[in-house]
Formats: sequence, structure tokens, C-alpha cells
Amino acid sequence: MKVGIVMGSISDKDIVEKSVKILQKFGVDIELRVISAHRTPFGAAEYAKTAEERGIEVIIAAAGKAAHLAGVIAGITPLPVIGLPIKSSTMDGLDSLLSVVQMPKGVPVATVAINGAENAGLLAVQILSVKYPELREKFKEYKLEMAEEVRDMDRKVKEI
Amino acid sequence: MKVGIVMGSISDKDIVEKSVKILQKFGVDIELRVISAHRTPFGAAEYAKTAEERGIEVIIAAAGKAAHLAGVIAGITPLPVIGLPIKSSTMDGLDSLLSVVQMPKGVPVATVAINGAENAGLLAVQILSVKYPELREKFKEYKLEMAEEVRDMDRKVKEI
Amino acid sequence: MKVGIVMGSISDKDIVEKSVKILQKFGVDIELRVISAHRTPFGAAEYAKTAEERGIEVIIAAAGKAAHLAGVIAGITPLPVIGLPIKSSTMDGLDSLLSVVQMPKGVPVATVAINGAENAGLLAVQILSVKYPELREKFKEYKLEMAEEVRDMDRKVKEI
Amino acid sequence: MKVGIVMGSISDKDIVEKSVKILQKFGVDIELRVISAHRTPFGAAEYAKTAEERGIEVIIAAAGKAAHLAGVIAGITPLPVIGLPIKSSTMDGLDSLLSVVQMPKGVPVATVAINGAENAGLLAVQILSVKYPELREKFKEYKLEMAEEVRDMDRKVKEI
Amino acid sequence: MKVGIVMGSISDKDIVEKSVKILQKFGVDIELRVISAHRTPFGAAEYAKTAEERGIEVIIAAAGKAAHLAGVIAGITPLPVIGLPIKSSTMDGLDSLLSVVQMPKGVPVATVAINGAENAGLLAVQILSVKYPELREKFKEYKLEMAEEVRDMDRKVKEI
Amino acid sequence: MKVGIVMGSISDKDIVEKSVKILQKFGVDIELRVISAHRTPFGAAEYAKTAEERGIEVIIAAAGKAAHLAGVIAGITPLPVIGLPIKSSTMDGLDSLLSVVQMPKGVPVATVAINGAENAGLLAVQILSVKYPELREKFKEYKLEMAEEVRDMDRKVKEI
Amino acid sequence: MKVGIVMGSISDKDIVEKSVKILQKFGVDIELRVISAHRTPFGAAEYAKTAEERGIEVIIAAAGKAAHLAGVIAGITPLPVIGLPIKSSTMDGLDSLLSVVQMPKGVPVATVAINGAENAGLLAVQILSVKYPELREKFKEYKLEMAEEVRDMDRKVKEI
Amino acid sequence: MKVGIVMGSISDKDIVEKSVKILQKFGVDIELRVISAHRTPFGAAEYAKTAEERGIEVIIAAAGKAAHLAGVIAGITPLPVIGLPIKSSTMDGLDSLLSVVQMPKGVPVATVAINGAENAGLLAVQILSVKYPELREKFKEYKLEMAEEVRDMDRKVKEI
Repeated sequence: MKVGIVMGSISDKDIVEKSVKILQKFGVDIELRVISAHRTPFGAAEYAKTAEERGIEVIIAAAGKAAHLAGVIAGITPLPVIGLPIKSSTMDGLDSLLSVVQMPKGVPVATVAINGAENAGLLAVQILSVKYPELREKFKEYKLEMAEEVRDMDRKVKEI
Repeated sequence: MKVGIVMGSISDKDIVEKSVKILQKFGVDIELRVISAHRTPFGAAEYAKTAEERGIEVIIAAAGKAAHLAGVIAGITPLPVIGLPIKSSTMDGLDSLLSVVQMPKGVPVATVAINGAENAGLLAVQILSVKYPELREKFKEYKLEMAEEVRDMDRKVKEI
Repeated sequence: MKVGIVMGSISDKDIVEKSVKILQKFGVDIELRVISAHRTPFGAAEYAKTAEERGIEVIIAAAGKAAHLAGVIAGITPLPVIGLPIKSSTMDGLDSLLSVVQMPKGVPVATVAINGAENAGLLAVQILSVKYPELREKFKEYKLEMAEEVRDMDRKVKEI
Repeated sequence: MKVGIVMGSISDKDIVEKSVKILQKFGVDIELRVISAHRTPFGAAEYAKTAEERGIEVIIAAAGKAAHLAGVIAGITPLPVIGLPIKSSTMDGLDSLLSVVQMPKGVPVATVAINGAENAGLLAVQILSVKYPELREKFKEYKLEMAEEVRDMDRKVKEI
Repeated sequence: MKVGIVMGSISDKDIVEKSVKILQKFGVDIELRVISAHRTPFGAAEYAKTAEERGIEVIIAAAGKAAHLAGVIAGITPLPVIGLPIKSSTMDGLDSLLSVVQMPKGVPVATVAINGAENAGLLAVQILSVKYPELREKFKEYKLEMAEEVRDMDRKVKEI
Repeated sequence: MKVGIVMGSISDKDIVEKSVKILQKFGVDIELRVISAHRTPFGAAEYAKTAEERGIEVIIAAAGKAAHLAGVIAGITPLPVIGLPIKSSTMDGLDSLLSVVQMPKGVPVATVAINGAENAGLLAVQILSVKYPELREKFKEYKLEMAEEVRDMDRKVKEI
Repeated sequence: MKVGIVMGSISDKDIVEKSVKILQKFGVDIELRVISAHRTPFGAAEYAKTAEERGIEVIIAAAGKAAHLAGVIAGITPLPVIGLPIKSSTMDGLDSLLSVVQMPKGVPVATVAINGAENAGLLAVQILSVKYPELREKFKEYKLEMAEEVRDMDRKVKEI
Repeated sequence: MKVGIVMGSISDKDIVEKSVKILQKFGVDIELRVISAHRTPFGAAEYAKTAEERGIEVIIAAAGKAAHLAGVIAGITPLPVIGLPIKSSTMDGLDSLLSVVQMPKGVPVATVAINGAENAGLLAVQILSVKYPELREKFKEYKLEMAEEVRDMDRKVKEI
């Protein structure tokens, strides 16, 4: 099982690495790329057209501002595309969010929160686990761990 | 293959039916429900807890205003949850969108556009098609049909 | 008299402590908890279901982003629930505010300003003082003190 | 037990009547007034100053645009004040919401959703029920009724 | 001299026709097309790649929601691209505007007002008139006509 | 000639001092006060009621968040009231701006930009200069000075 | 005493007439004009430059969208300029409001609410009454009338 | 070939210099000016009126807040005007963007992203290249360079 992660610029790498870590934790293969919908449009089209045959099953696309990367890829590939809106230096990420989520009829992008890179990774895992039962089990364990972490915080706070 | 569709109120039905039609077109079974995160919280929890064992593989949750339904279900089920923000009479759907998409770390909701019910259905199809190759083929045909429709419009406009 | 304060994550503690201080100043008992609507959904339900019988009379729920905690608790408990929207790293708190305040018909959340933790505490005091006349008296004194503080500032500024 | 309901203009009456109906359903006495924070400022001050001694225990204040009514009353009375932001002809109610909810430190207003008049009434009931156990019981029944209504919708939708 | 006008859907035609009329008034040739960045991505790429050699000198691209059409075309063609954000049924056009104007470094889109189709046409004329002096002269006359229309309104209003 | 300047909290002083400096530069007397619409409501009413008889001719009211100070004073005094919205730690000043400018019919507040303290001072000067011709002359000189400053910048930039 | 009222287009007349009626009620002379900052820029400059010598004492400028009219006039005339933002077909008036109120340092525009034409008229009256005591008296009567109207509404509502 | 760059204040220089660098890179002559629509309105008018005869072919106008500079110049000159909205200390640049882009019918401003100074320069180059084939060639090379830079980043990321 393999997830393709593309980002619009290397400046998005620090955020995108949180998706990488989540996927590595779940043992999912990753193909990490920098592709720009605007500066390498044919590269983006090529990427989207060949993703399925290269064995990729879900794509995460991260971009900021007028963030077209996820939508452009979703227009070409039949694979599910997760859109990760990146907050840029103005507009507090609202421009990225609306550019990613408000896709017109026919071409959905599965959008997560602004800068929500962990959740992009987890959503990819959830999608893959429709097919791979072992991932489903790991994801259930992950949920239990998260709950335990919250209960730990709860215990700490109660002691105060 | 089966998709669970839940809406927060029967008033969301006209929009949600567009998801239903898409899924029927692709031959996907549907379980349609009205469940409120706030008015039937235990019903929502029960629904989310048992969805997997009832054979549901993807959930679409539609709600408006402070739209917690998708998030609440995603907190419980390991299944991928698609959030469909419904526009209500104020705030032009921004409240619904932000309540659905801005999920905290650990619990993603795959959000589509405000009132984007067709896309919620299509995203469910794309997710299922990770597992079911026949759906993948149908989805590719759907993309070709869409392209053909646009080319039809293009021909009409050129004649003007 | 007892107020339950729940926060979605321990990272909200610095803000929530301002509610704690207000309640301590008024001699109100506090039960402080970390509970996540999304990561510990059954914990949240359990908390809400048993709050009344544990002697809690008002609940303050603090959360950020798609802030469902207050709404989820208000869906279960009959107690008045005060929602405290926490500003997160994007969207300047607008996502939290709308997720908390725009509750659908039937399940109100008494919402205060973004990061308005003192006011969450004071509102709890005002609600309790409907029942406890001694709190009403203390609250009147508090209003007088506040007025005196403003008059102090006024005197300082006049001297300039 | 008595709730004071004030609105900034008689044009808000259609919305405010939903609060009235809720309170009547719960058997709560109502004092309904039109008072303007800007056009009858001394009337507003007088109202706020004497509300407690007239037996009012909770105040609902409804206003639109730069909606100061709730805040002005909350500055004077020690009673809990519920703010009901009314949507006006521009800004989709965002101006009203922010003017009501973003109160500075020291003077909370318990804000409900834009045009959320039923919830303003229900919140008043919840606050009163801290003191009056019979209201608490009625409110629990109300919650059960609401849940039953949702389950009715659910049954209808399932039959489709 | 020729301007290419592309719209994302035939539903944008009523608005786009205002651009057409302006360009016809100035005697500029038009190539009118329906092309979708998402539903016919290769058509869009083909269009952008061959626009220059087909004699097009300026492109107007109209689209709504997550409006990627202008940006996608601008990523490929060296021609100046005018972006015309179309207001859709939600978000009052803000999503379209931000998706069109907030282009990342390297790929500008010359954005006009939401639904500002006349201005898109006029901007194309202004750009062409850098090269064609006769268009510049016509544009100056157009400005004089506009001024005269305002003076006419002014006379009417003065008589009141 | 005298201008009353009131601020909602001493924390607004750094911004308000820019209004003070402008008024001093024009030789206008100032009465500087800290008065809170919410914490000292009767002080605010008293201030507004007696401002005219104390010789004040224009009032500047500065406040942030749900900024009611200007509106509350304008509801009582017949004097022109200038509203100065102060940016607070959340919402980037939008809450303050809307709370000040969106006044209902009958009670205008002359609103300047968020944190626009110099302009609040200058607007007071412009209003006073309707009555005092010497202020009008000074204001014209001020405009000339400003223009000269811009021309200085222009010269510097040209040299680059 | 005379007020100049300028609007950017005759389509703003229906709203602007509310300012006219207010000024007529107070016996203030009016000079009503249609002038466009963009389509008749020299007309706007001429208007602003000669307003004072034509006996105008306050200017009301109404415009929508990128509403520059008030700011452009305020840049030239020393008279106080009241900005009236007009709601256009998109953006709910937010574009007009920000274009009018967010003036840079040095050139204030006294902004009223979106479509707040009565308040623009009343603010002009308040400014003039700094100089004309008879207007001040009339304005005080107007405030009393308004209060009486509210009390009438109050009586009606009490009877229900 | 010459581009006029005007900014509203010397504080915009750091951002505007990115436009300068782009134009220098392409060998385009620049006339750099500080002109304020509000503080030097006649200077702005003079600039706009004489730009064409001074050999300027495209104008870039940068301004923040209620950013009227681009619109005011576009109202006078027949040249294409590029609007560069500058982010100021409040409102995250939304005020500047709307003031620049939402121009009324008849007077377009070719707007680029908030603080998008490189793109303002590139858009000027694209417009000029309608006339100057050598610029078109250089722009195509620039696009190839950009694509190469992205591919470099892509290679780096792949190695990780």
C-alpha cells in the first residue's frame, strides 16, 4: 500500500512531514514529491495520470494561497485525493481552505483542516483501511492510544 | 459495498438526495438515516459504534450551523467519514464549513464543499474504489462522461 | 455549589485557569477535567450523563478549532453549559466561535468571547447566583470593585 | 419564576416570539419589553437597575447590527443576561454576533446563535432550573421529546 | 487582435456575455469556449498550450467556487490571463475571488471584481491597446462616454 | 474649543495618545478620561449627559472587542461622537469595527479606521473647524505639510 | 448651512434619499450630485476643491464596492466628509465598508453603517450643530421623538 | 518599454522592490514614485494624466488599507493599471484587496495577490510582451527556469 504526497513548494515540507510520520508509523509506503500546479503544470498532469499505475492508492496534496494542486490532480486521477490547505503569510489560511474545499460538482477533494497534516495522514490510513484490514486494526489501536493520552492529561489536571 | 448517509435533520434531505443518486448510479448500497449529534447523542454514538459491523465502509455525515455530526461520528468509528457542510439561513455556510473541516489533530473528517452533496457521493465512490476495482472502472467512465458534457457545452458555445 | 470545567486538551489550561481563579475567588467548588469530544467520546458522554448526579450545577466547556465539546455535552446534560471558544493557530478563533455559538435549535450553549475565560467563570457565578443569594451579593461587590478599578484608571489618566 | 425579554426594536418581535413560546411552554412568567440601548438609554439603565427587584431572574436581550442592548444591560444588572443576535439586512448577522459575544473582561453575555430565539428561551429555562427542580424535570422531558422527533424523522427516512 | 474567453461551465455564460459585448464594441475578435480545469484538464492544458499560436493575445478565464481555471491556464501560457471570479450560490463569491487572485509567486492572474465581466473585457482592451494604437484611441473615447453618462445622471439629479 | 476623549480601558492609552498629540498640535483643549460602558455604565451615562454643558464640542470614544462605548455615549449626548475601534488580541479588530460602525438608525457614530487614532483626532479638528475658521486654516496647512512629506519621500525614491 | 451629498451612481439614489429627507426635516440646504471617483475623476476633484467656497460645510459621499468617492474627496477638501458605504450585489457590503472606513493616516472619513443613509444625514446635522445652536436644539427634540417612538412600541408590546 | 511603479507610502518600498527586481531582470525601464491618492491627490492626477506621454506603457500601483491609489490612477489614464494590495497591521490585507479589486463597472484594475509584488512585475512583463516579442521569449525562459527550480526541489525531496 502506497500514498503519494505532493506539495506545491519545498517550503511546505515542515508541515507535510507530519503526514509522513503518521504514514510511517502505520507502515504505509510513501512517494514524496514537490510538484507545482502552476509552475510545473505538465509535471502535475503527468504525476496525476500515472499515479494509479505506479501503485499509489491515495494522494495527499498540500498547497497554500490559491491552492489548486489538489483540485488539478483530482481532475485527472481517479484516486481519492486529500487536500491539505497550508496557511500562508496573509489571509490566515482562509484563501487556501476555500481554494481546496469549494471544488465544483464532479471533482471532490477530501479536505482536512488548515495545516492539518497529521489528519491528512490519518485520513489516508482510514481510506486504505477500507481495503487493508490490518491497517484498520492499527487505526483502532491508534484511537485507543489517543484516548489514553487524553486520560493521562485528565489525571494530571485532576491532581492540581 | 455500503455507504451510510446520516443527516442532522430531515430538512437536509433535499440536498442529501444528490449523494443518494450518485451512489445509486454507481450501484452502491445505502443506509439513509436521520441522527442528531445534539438531540440524539446516544443514537449517534450507537450508530458510529456499530457502523462497521453492519457492513458500512464509508460514512457521509451532513449537517449545518455548528455542524458536529461528522466530527462526533468520526470520533467513534474507525471508518472514513465524509463531512458535508449544509448552508443554513445565516452565515452563508461558513459556520458549517469551519465546524466540519477544522477538526483537531487525531480525528480527520474528509470535508467537501458547502452543499456539495454530489461530491460527497463521488468521494465515497472513490474511497470504495480503492478496494473494489469495478467501481474504479465505473468512476473512470463517469469522468469521461463529465468531460464529454463539458465538450458538448463547448460545442454549443462555439456555435454562437 | 460546584462548577464542572472541561477542556479539550491540556494546552487550553493556561486560558482555562482564569476561569478557575474567578470561581475560587467566589468560593465555588470546581471539578477540572480534560475530556475530548473526539478522542474520548465515551468519556465525554459519561461525563455529561453523570454531571448532575455528581452535584455539578453549571458546566464550562473550553475547546478550539471545530470546537464540539460544549455542544456534545449540552446534547446530553440538562445542566446549563457555558461554551468558551479557544483561539487556535489559524483562523483567529473564528472557527472556534462559530462551532460553539451556532448551535441548532433545541440545544443551546451559553457562549462567551474567544478566550474569554474570566467571563466564562463570571457567567457561571451569575447563573449559580439565581439560586444562591450569597453569590449574588458577592457578584454585586465584584461589579463595584470593577467600577472602582476603572475609576482608578480614570484618575491616573486625568492627572496626565 | 420570571424572565425579562427585551428587544431593541418591534421589528425583532417575530423572532423574539419563539423565545416567548418556549418560556410559555415551560410555564415561566415573561415580561416583554421594547427598549433601545441607543434611543432610550435611560430606559435601558432603569430597566436593568430594577429588574432584580421586580422579580426577574434571567434576562434575554435581542438586538441587531451594532447590538449593544445585551451588553449595556449586563453592565448594570447582576442577573445573568442571554444575548440573542438578530440578523439584519447586511453582514448576514456577523455584526450582531460579534457585538454581542465579544464582551470585554468582567461583563459576560451568554450568547446564543444568530436568530436562535428558541435556544435563548431554552437557555433561560436551563438557568432557572438550577434553582427550580420542577423546571429541570420538564427540561429533561423536553430533551426526550426532541429525541423522539428525530427518531420519527429517522423512521420516515428509512422507509424511503 | 483576438481575445480568448473561457468559462468553467455554460452556467457562467450570462455573465461572460458582458465581456463579449465589450470586446465586440471595440472590434476585438473573440474565441469563446467552455473548458473546465477539473472536468476537462487535458482540454484546458491543450487550450493554454496552443492559444498563442492560434493568434490569441489575451485570455479571459471565468470560473466560480474553487476557481482554478485562470490559474491553470496561466501556468501554461505565456499570454496575460485575466481572471473573472464568478459568484456561486454560497460564500458570496469570496471563495472564487480568493481562488483566482491569491496566486503564488511566479504565475500572476490579472483579477477583476466578482462578476465584473465588463471590466474583464475592458482590461483586455487596455492590454491590447499597449500594442494597437487604434484601440487606445477607442478606449479614450469610451472613457469620455462614461464620463458623459455620469454627467447626464448628475444633471438629472440636480433637477430634483 | 474642547474635545472629550474617552477610552474603555487604560490599555488603550498608547493608541489614544496619537489622538491627543494631533489635538495638541492644533491647539485644541482635551479632556482625557477612562470610562467603561460595561464596568462603569452610570459613569458613562453621566459623562455623556454632562459633556455639552462642560464645554465639550466633539467626543472621541475608543474601545475594543464588543466596543459599545461610542454607541452608548452617542445614545445620550447630542454632540457628534467619533468612534475609534481598537484592535484586540483576537479577530484582528473586525469585532471592534463592526460594533462601532454598524449603529442602528437614529444614533450615528462617526467611525474611523481600526486603531486610526491620528484620524480620530483630525476628524475632530475638521468638525470643530466648521465653527472655528482658524482651525480650518491650520488644517489646510496640515494638508500641505502632509503633501510635502509625500513629495519628500517621492524625491528620495526617485534618487534610487 | 448647506450639506453636499454626492453619490457614485444614480443607482444609489434610493438609499441616499433617506439622507436628503433627514436634512430637509432639519431645514438644512442640500446640494445633490452624481459624481464618480473613477469615471469623472476631474469632476470629483473640481467638486472637492470648490465645495468650501460654494458654502458647503459638510459632505456626504455614498458609494459601493471599491468605494473610493469619500476618500478621494476627503483628500482634497478640508471639510469633514461623511462616508456612506452602499451594499452592492456581492460581498454583502463588506467591500464598501472597508474601502470607506480603513483610510490611511492623515485623511479621515467619518464612516456610518452600510446603507446607513439616515445616520449619514443625522451625523451631518450633529456636525453642523457644533456651529448652529438652533440645529442642536432640533436634534435634541429629534432624540426625544425617537425615544417616544420606542416607548410607543414598548407600550404595544406590553399589551400583548 | 517602461513601467511606472507608484506606491502610497515609502513604507511599502520593501515589498515594491520585488517588482523592481523582476522588471530589471527582464530589462524593462522603471519609473519609481511615491504618490498618495489621499495626501497628494493632484500629484496623483497629474501622474496619471501624463503617464502615457512620458512613455509609460503599464502602471503598477501599490497601496494598503483603503487602497485607492490604483483605482484613482485607473480612472484617469487609459494605460492598463496593475493593483498590488499591501497588507497593513490590521485586517490581514483583506481591506486592501477588496479596495483594489472590487472596482465598479468601467474602470478595471488588474489585481494580484496581497503583497504579490513579484507577480505584479511579471504581469507587467506579460502585458508588455503582447507588443514586444523579445519579452515574450524571455518570459518563456523564465517559466522554464521556474519549472526547473521546482524540479530541483522535487529531486531534493525525493532523496529524503
